[in-house]
This record gives sequence, structure tokens and C-alpha cells, in this order.
Amino acid sequence: MDNDIRITLLGLGDMGTALARTWLAAGYRLTVWNRTAAKAEPLRAEGAAVAATAAEAVAASDLVVACLLDDASVEESLAGADLAGKDLVNLTTGTPGQARSRADWARGRGARFLDGGIMAVPPMIGVPESGGYIFYSGSREVFDAHRETLAVPTGTSYVGEDAGFAALHDVALLSAMNGMFAGVCHAFALVRNEDISLKDFAPLLTGWITAMASNLGVVAEQLESGDYTKGVVSNLAMQVAGNATLLRTADEQGVSAELLAPYMNLMERRLAAGHGEEGTTGIIDLLTR
Amino acid sequence: MDNDIRITLLGLGDMGTALARTWLAAGYRLTVWNRTAAKAEPLRAEGAAVAATAAEAVAASDLVVACLLDDASVEESLAGADLAGKDLVNLTTGTPGQARSRADWARGRGARFLDGGIMAVPPMIGVPESGGYIFYSGSREVFDAHRETLAVPTGTSYVGEDAGFAALHDVALLSAMNGMFAGVCHAFALVRNEDISLKDFAPLLTGWITAMASNLGVVAEQLESGDYTKGVVSNLAMQVAGNATLLRTADEQGVSAELLAPYMNLMERRLAAGHGEEGTTGIIDLLTR
Ligand SMILES: NC(=O)c1ccc[n+]([C@@H]2O[C@H](COP(=O)([O-])OP(=O)(O)OC[C@H]3O[C@@H](n4cnc5c(N)ncnc54)[C@H](OP(=O)(O)O)[C@@H]3O)[C@@H](O)[C@H]2O)c1
Ligand SMILES: NC(=O)c1ccc[n+]([C@@H]2O[C@H](COP(=O)([O-])OP(=O)(O)OC[C@H]3O[C@@H](n4cnc5c(N)ncnc54)[C@H](OP(=O)(O)O)[C@@H]3O)[C@@H](O)[C@H]2O)c1
Repeated sequence: MDNDIRITLLGLGDMGTALARTWLAAGYRLTVWNRTAAKAEPLRAEGAAVAATAAEAVAASDLVVACLLDDASVEESLAGADLAGKDLVNLTTGTPGQARSRADWARGRGARFLDGGIMAVPPMIGVPESGGYIFYSGSREVFDAHRETLAVPTGTSYVGEDAGFAALHDVALLSAMNGMFAGVCHAFALVRNEDISLKDFAPLLTGWITAMASNLGVVAEQLESGDYTKGVVSNLAMQVAGNATLLRTADEQGVSAELLAPYMNLMERRLAAGHGEEGTTGIIDLLTR
Repeated sequence: MDNDIRITLLGLGDMGTALARTWLAAGYRLTVWNRTAAKAEPLRAEGAAVAATAAEAVAASDLVVACLLDDASVEESLAGADLAGKDLVNLTTGTPGQARSRADWARGRGARFLDGGIMAVPPMIGVPESGGYIFYSGSREVFDAHRETLAVPTGTSYVGEDAGFAALHDVALLSAMNGMFAGVCHAFALVRNEDISLKDFAPLLTGWITAMASNLGVVAEQLESGDYTKGVVSNLAMQVAGNATLLRTADEQGVSAELLAPYMNLMERRLAAGHGEEGTTGIIDLLTR
């Protein structure tokens, strides 16, 4: 199952190692490098070529994938490498601004640049049914040229020429997930000291969140049209009234309301500004400078 | 399609009216009462008997359903009614403590009591495929005796003899939903001023939240076993490091981080207490008094 495609991978942490194994298993000619050399040894045994320096690793393939700790470690690792004519795919997590600067920096060194944001944890890599994928943005040519290679470890989703868009999508989804988990923590805190089976409670929570997240297209339409009353079934005035029950219940159950407070405060500010007939989309206006 | 079952419904707001229509459509002998009498007229035309007072409405049926504004309005409306021998089903939103007190109050008046928490908005009532349902708790006998009748408007889920459990489940799920929507608002705020189609972005958000909420059973198991490292793939130390990218991105995009801050603060406190190898479940301990 060998093929003739060469890839270089810089970075053999948990994620880099997981990626590497999928390319080796698919028969690619993989060259790896890691700052701490010992981490490369298991992969050498599995068929990878191990480079002594990042520059040597870069020289081995036209396609260079970096999966390092952070943006600074990418700059540091590639400082002495000749990137001219290379396709650099950066799977290192960073901000949109860092991705845009790194794209300029790569272009200045003669490389084409594609940024990636990994929406998966290492155990999901190489497991298509895990639902994991990587957002890509930047050079469309690089994405198209290496599409099959990039699809080996996990799903792919190209989100635009702006090199910052992969990171922006990545961070936006992680931020939304954090909000969801914050709500979930509050919910578990409310019920945990009662005679309630948490194993029975968990799927109720999953089902409700799934149902309530099923149509965020309404929020998108409201933002795009500017009409925040469109499709509203439970208006802001009703929701603010309902918040009192949420706060009072937290108090009864001995649970701090700190995770609920900022969102409720924004709802109240928006209501006080005369938007009681809208849903909650208007609070997005209050978040933006 | 008539049947001989009598029900009394107190409260014809948006929700009460939606409930009433499903019982009328199913041929029940429905008696209604509303403080503001005019709201009963459309239902009279659809076949409901309209009572002049709440006491008269209560006298008409053995099963009395209340769907009023709040707990105080239930007490007020039923002050002059004879509840002896009645089954009182209270679908008015309240706290667990209010439901428990109302259960004692009803027992003191000779009624059996079942509390309900409605996980639906009016347009979902009478639409089985909407996924809506009502949590019930309190008298199991009342739930079993009227199971079919209660299942007419929407799904049912009995969660225990403790009259407060329906409200507790209701509030817990709404609280989690608020957290999820807070995260969603932050996510939309990050991308809205970029050249990104919000209609394309919304389903990405839905898919990610759905995937991440799919196995909250892990949190339940951790809480029940007390081992918060069980099944952790992305530990607290890694997540706290990742928070820096989320905050920096918010700053780059001109978005306030107020909705993310409390959860991140709890993560940092838990990490500082030496729990870097756990997931985020430990923050639940920090929420409880
Ligand atoms: N793991 C996940 O769940 C996950 C999920 C999504 C995205 N990601 C992203 O994937 C990237 C890699 O994550 P990981 O989990 O593999 O991290 P990790 O296990 O901590 O590995 C970090 C890697 O970066 C290298 N590194 C750190 N500083 C360096 C420097 N100054 N110069 C050269 N190399 C340096 C490390 O080399 P040494 O071995 O020499 O220390 C190691 O190879 C990160 O950007 C992360 O945000 C990870
Ligand atoms: N609508 C929803 O999306 C939804 C979802 C889940 C749960 N619920 C719950 O369902 C219950 C009813 O909601 P709704 O949407 O129907 O509310 P609504 O449209 O505001 O109607 C409120 C009802 O309560 C009555 N009422 C208020 N104060 C009263 C008092 N002091 N004495 C007697 N009656 C009084 C009103 O009578 P008047 O007509 O005389 O004002 C009206 O019938 C609430 O507890 C709500 O939290 C609603």
C-alpha cells in the first residue's frame, strides 16, 4: 500500500503522533522531526524517516505540515529552513491574527500557506466516524493540490482564502462549546446532591441541548436581516422573567449563579433598552466594540 | 371522538390555550377558567365549558390542571376553591421549593398533587415530532391515573415522588440551555463582521455542539465515582492553556470576553488547586456551597 507521495511532519506531540500514524498506515513516505528526538523513535520503527533537524525535514518533501505547540514554536522551528517552493500547512493552534501574520511570513520565504484548525482530539484522528475534522483556510491551490493527503487523518472543511478563517472558525466553535459546558456544569451542580440518578439525567441534558441547538439558522437570519424579532417564540421579556426562577432555584440548591450571571445581565440590559419583543440575538450587539 | 373524561384547566395564556386546544381536539369534556374572561371565548366556540369562577371550574372535574403565571397566582386563584378529593396538576413554572410547598398546601386541602415543568413553547404543543415534553413529579398515583390524558398535549417524563423534581429538572435544562446560547452569542459575535456566511456558519455550530454534548454520561460517571480523571482526553492544564487563544481571539475581533470569563476563572482556580490531570468536572465542586 505504498504510494509515492512525500510529506514532512514537524512536531510529534500527542496530535502530531496521531496524524503521523494515519499517513504511515496509508503508505505515504513520511519524514518526521521533533525537538525532543526520542519521540520520533516509535515512528521510525513504523516506517518514518527521521530527520535530525527541522531544516533537513523540510528539505525532504514539497508538502510540510507543522503541528507544534503554538505560533512562536513554528517560527522558532522553521527559522533555519529553506521554505522556497514549499507548501506549508500549519495545524498549530493560534489566533486568526497569528495565522494571517504566519501566512505573510511564509509568502515572504517563498512558500504557499494553508492554515488549519483541528476540531478533534488525538483519539478521533484516523477514526472517520468520530465526526472530527480540520478547518482549512488560506491558499485554495494548496488545499486542492493536497486534498486527498489532508483527508487521510480526518475530515476537511475549507472555509476561505483569508488565512485567519480556519482559526476563527476553530475558536468560535470552541468558545460556544465552553458556554455549553458551563451551562452543563451548572445543571449538574443543581441536581447532584438530590436523589436523582446522574446517569439518567445526562441523556436528558444531551437531548435538550441537541434540540435547542438544532436551529441556529434563525439567529443567522436575524443577524443577516437585522430583524431580531423574526421567528421569535419566547421573547426577551418572558425570558428575563424566567431568569428569576433560575436564580432562585440556584439559591435554593446552594449553587453559585456565577456561570449564569453575565448572560442574564446582557439580557436585562437589552430589555431595558426597549427590545422586549426580540429574542436574545440582540445581546450580540452588546458584545461587540 | 368524544370521550367521557372531564378536565378543568385554569389559565388561558399562550400556554394554557395551546394545551386546551389539544384536549378539545381529542374530545375531552373541558371546563376552562381565566381571570380575564374574554380569553375564554374562542375556546367556548370550540366546545369548552366556561366557568365564571375558579371555584366553579374546580367543582366541574376531578382532574384540575393549572397553567398560570407563577406560584403566587396559583395560590390566589385557588384560594376559594374546594380541592377535597381532587387531583391537582400544576403546570405553572416555579422553583423546586415552591413546588414542594404547593404540594404540602394541596395535601392540606385534601387534594393529590402532581407538579409539571413544561419543556416546550406553545407552538410545540400538540406536535409530537417537535420533541417537546413535560417533566412530572409528585404523586405517582396521579401520574398513572391520568397518564393518557396528560400525554395528549405533548410527551411526558415522570422523574420522581419528590414534588420538586420536575421543577428541578426543568430549571437545570433551561440553565444549561442558557449557557449554550451564551456561547453561541459569543461565537456569532466573533465571526459576524467578517466575510463569512452566517447561514453556513450556523450548521457548523449546531454540529459541533451536538457532537460535544453527545456524551455527558462521562461527566455523570465522574461525579458518581468521584474520579474526575476517568475518560479525560483533554485535561484541564491543556484547556487552560487553550483559553489564552480564545481570549486573544476575542480581543482581536473586538468582542468582549464577559460571557467566557466566569467558566475560565473556575478552570484556573481548579488547576491552581492541583487538578491539572482532570477534565473540567471538578469546577462543579467549586459551584456548590
Ligand atoms: N491534543 C489535542 O487535543 C489537540 C486538539 C486540537 C488541536 N491541537 C493542537 O495541535 C498542536 C499540537 O498539540 P499536541 O497535543 O500534539 O501538543 P503536545 O503533545 O504538547 O506537543 C507539543 C509539540 O510542540 C513541540 N514544541 C513545543 N515548543 C517547541 C519549540 N519551541 N520548538 C519546537 N517544538 C516545540 C513539542 O516538542 P517536544 O516534544 O520537544 O516538547 C511537541 O512536539 C497544538 O497547537 C494544539 O493546540 C491539539
Ligand atoms: N409560553 C411559554 O413558552 C412557556 C414555556 C414553558 C412553560 N411556560 C409556563 O406556563 C405558564 C403559563 O405561561 P403562558 O405563556 O401561558 O403565560 P401568559 O401568556 O403570560 O399567561 C399567564 C396566565 O396567568 C394568568 N394570571 C396571571 N396572574 C394571575 C393571577 N394573579 N390570578 C389568576 N391568574 C393569573 C393570566 O391571566 P390573565 O389572562 O387574566 O392575565 C394568564 O392566564 C407559566 O408558568 C410559564 O412559565 C410557558
